[in-house]
Amino acid sequence: MVGGLTLVQPDIELAASLFDALSRATRQGRGIVRDSYGAGEETAHAIMRSAASRLDLEISIDAIGNLMMTQPGRDRSAARVIIGSHLDSVPQGGNYDGAAGVVAGLCTLSALKKAGIEPAYDLTVMGIRAEESAWFDVPYIGSAGAFGLLDPASLSIKRSDNGRTLESALIERGFDPEAIRNRRRLIEPSAIRAFLEVHIEQGPTLVARGLPAAVVTGIRGCKRFRNARCLGRYGHSGAVNRPYRQDAVAATVALLHHLETIWVRQEDAGADLVFTAGELYTDPLMHGPSKIAGETHFVVDLRSVSDATMDEVAAEARDAAARIGDAYRVSFELGATSDSPSAVMDARLRARLKSLLDQPFEMPSGAGHDAAVFAKMGIPTAMIFVRNEHGSHNPDEALAMEDFEVATRALLRLLLDFPL
Amino acid sequence: MVGGLTLVQPDIELAASLFDALSRATRQGRGIVRDSYGAGEETAHAIMRSAASRLDLEISIDAIGNLMMTQPGRDRSAARVIIGSHLDSVPQGGNYDGAAGVVAGLCTLSALKKAGIEPAYDLTVMGIRAEESAWFDVPYIGSAGAFGLLDPASLSIKRSDNGRTLESALIERGFDPEAIRNRRRLIEPSAIRAFLEVHIEQGPTLVARGLPAAVVTGIRGCKRFRNARCLGRYGHSGAVNRPYRQDAVAATVALLHHLETIWVRQEDAGADLVFTAGELYTDPLMHGPSKIAGETHFVVDLRSVSDATMDEVAAEARDAAARIGDAYRVSFELGATSDSPSAVMDARLRARLKSLLDQPFEMPSGAGHDAAVFAKMGIPTAMIFVRNEHGSHNPDEALAMEDFEVATRALLRLLLDFPL
Repeated sequence: MVGGLTLVQPDIELAASLFDALSRATRQGRGIVRDSYGAGEETAHAIMRSAASRLDLEISIDAIGNLMMTQPGRDRSAARVIIGSHLDSVPQGGNYDGAAGVVAGLCTLSALKKAGIEPAYDLTVMGIRAEESAWFDVPYIGSAGAFGLLDPASLSIKRSDNGRTLESALIERGFDPEAIRNRRRLIEPSAIRAFLEVHIEQGPTLVARGLPAAVVTGIRGCKRFRNARCLGRYGHSGAVNRPYRQDAVAATVALLHHLETIWVRQEDAGADLVFTAGELYTDPLMHGPSKIAGETHFVVDLRSVSDATMDEVAAEARDAAARIGDAYRVSFELGATSDSPSAVMDARLRARLKSLLDQPFEMPSGAGHDAAVFAKMGIPTAMIFVRNEHGSHNPDEALAMEDFEVATRALLRLLLDFPL
Repeated sequence: MVGGLTLVQPDIELAASLFDALSRATRQGRGIVRDSYGAGEETAHAIMRSAASRLDLEISIDAIGNLMMTQPGRDRSAARVIIGSHLDSVPQGGNYDGAAGVVAGLCTLSALKKAGIEPAYDLTVMGIRAEESAWFDVPYIGSAGAFGLLDPASLSIKRSDNGRTLESALIERGFDPEAIRNRRRLIEPSAIRAFLEVHIEQGPTLVARGLPAAVVTGIRGCKRFRNARCLGRYGHSGAVNRPYRQDAVAATVALLHHLETIWVRQEDAGADLVFTAGELYTDPLMHGPSKIAGETHFVVDLRSVSDATMDEVAAEARDAAARIGDAYRVSFELGATSDSPSAVMDARLRARLKSLLDQPFEMPSGAGHDAAVFAKMGIPTAMIFVRNEHGSHNPDEALAMEDFEVATRALLRLLLDFPL
């Protein structure tokens, strides 16, 4: 694009004001609630649209609600660079997971505009819809939907809190479920030069190592039993001896304990794996302190950079559930898994980004990201992680503007280097 | 009393109509809701009062709401026999746990009345308040309160579902919390000749053995961590590797699994023990399928005929919680235990009742009962269990009128034998 313009700096003032506006508008109690295709996500989109207007960006919204904010390039017909991330959050999440990548794009384009730099080709900041699967039990609705990759059956998925379908949520917001039903492509992969995503690190590695940012090597996939159940039989806690019990809690504890031993064994064998049961509950309308529980609900979430490892552990989980179910006289219903495959980042972009960091560091991403969908489409994709004090998916996500500046400066330098 | 009147039979028609009225008036959805000092328990008391009126029984209500329905005897100053049980139920409980003992008393007095038999001394059917600790976290409020045994601090205990105190519930129903505050005795143990309680068996033993009824030898005590918690830290399920995790679910699973191994070890050593975690849940406002859980709530319920066994296992649970908490970088808050001691039944009454059964059988009670409080006061106490198809504390409690007749016939014969 334009070499040597190293004095151009990302517009951190704009970034700080956008994070502040997001926090004020979408906080409920302690945490952030930007529900996918709900009021919270809509508010975040409105804040970004308004900022894009002030930057004189072209604004368009695709058939399923993804927000495209474009600085036109000299050659409008050339493939564009997309900088983006999602604007939804988990329930009671934090202010930065997702939104940081959109804000990073806007404060980068603002810097180019202030410096009077006209890009060679279009630079688009994309506010992606519905990346979190906490609301509708499928990840990457916005990015996968944009490429016509989303299973049309997803339209019937019900929102976890209010039971409304994805289809009715799309219609309510004025979007078009037919795009998903017909697997319509809303953007052509060949028209995208690269996809770049800035995201807070969702683990403690950068904090532990004292580094402000890192280049991502690849993204862990996820295999999840989202709606696992154990069905036993309610009974009096004092009056039923062990041989007669059908205790759903005892059986679930046995299964989850066994899965932890599998995890340790896989780690000892050098495999990459994390295992989490983040939701686990007896029925509040049926349970009691003097009752054996007749039912549990739980989630089993497996993640690895290796799809084969996840497949193997999921199969072991099914075997163990059958065996433990028999032993405890209960039945497990693990249900189908929802899967998101692992993905690798573009080697050339990775190398270039790494060279742009004062303290070069690379690491895998434990969480899934929209970047994985772009990578799977064959689009050269890169990610930058920013240090974050308290993990993600919780109200305490923290992002120092100094660290954000390190990450967005690398992003800006990369853009100034294009065409690579 | 009057020997040889073996043709007198319990009024099973009255029993069936009372069970039917209770079911119709206090069922909510599938299960029974007779909340302690709430609308459901009040309805059950009204049904019993009305039946007692039709039987011309003397009716009185003590300062904390226990219902006394008395057939006057020839010698009104002599010590009386009390036949009774409680009229409350657990949330979504069944129709028979508790109520069967009150109905048994009424259908026995009805039989005496129909036969024109005037008892030698007063026979009182007692509808006891608030035996279940599911609503207020203390058992035997009605029976312990009647003997001035209830800790006055219990008045501040909040109802588990709506947070209202026991004191305000008493006042709302027109009862007198001062009776509890001043540990006032509402009945004198010396004025009670015997306490007799008919109750459904709450386990599967009688069904498994094909027996309609049994005489109870003794009652298991209970030691319960009612409000145990594990406090960890929320985090992203994919992005936090094992060494950094503070996973409340994983730690709770490890603790409950360890308690099961203690249970097996105690059983192997010949000790009487049951262990149940009947409530276990992550926070529905904070948890998520892609979040490590930062908090769990659970109940640990230990029961044994040996107080020493319960004390030993509770101490082991505390040790394990400290050790496992350290290993998982979380903290357990088990809290204080709520305790009800074990109790033995009167040997002479047991022997007599056993001789009155066509198929004599004795067994311990795994659950606590008001009878334990009367026994602890030195009152000769006996219990009869009736076969029940589906355990108790659930909507499927089942009681065949044929089995109920076997139990109440033994009760009636015992009354006809008095003074023993």
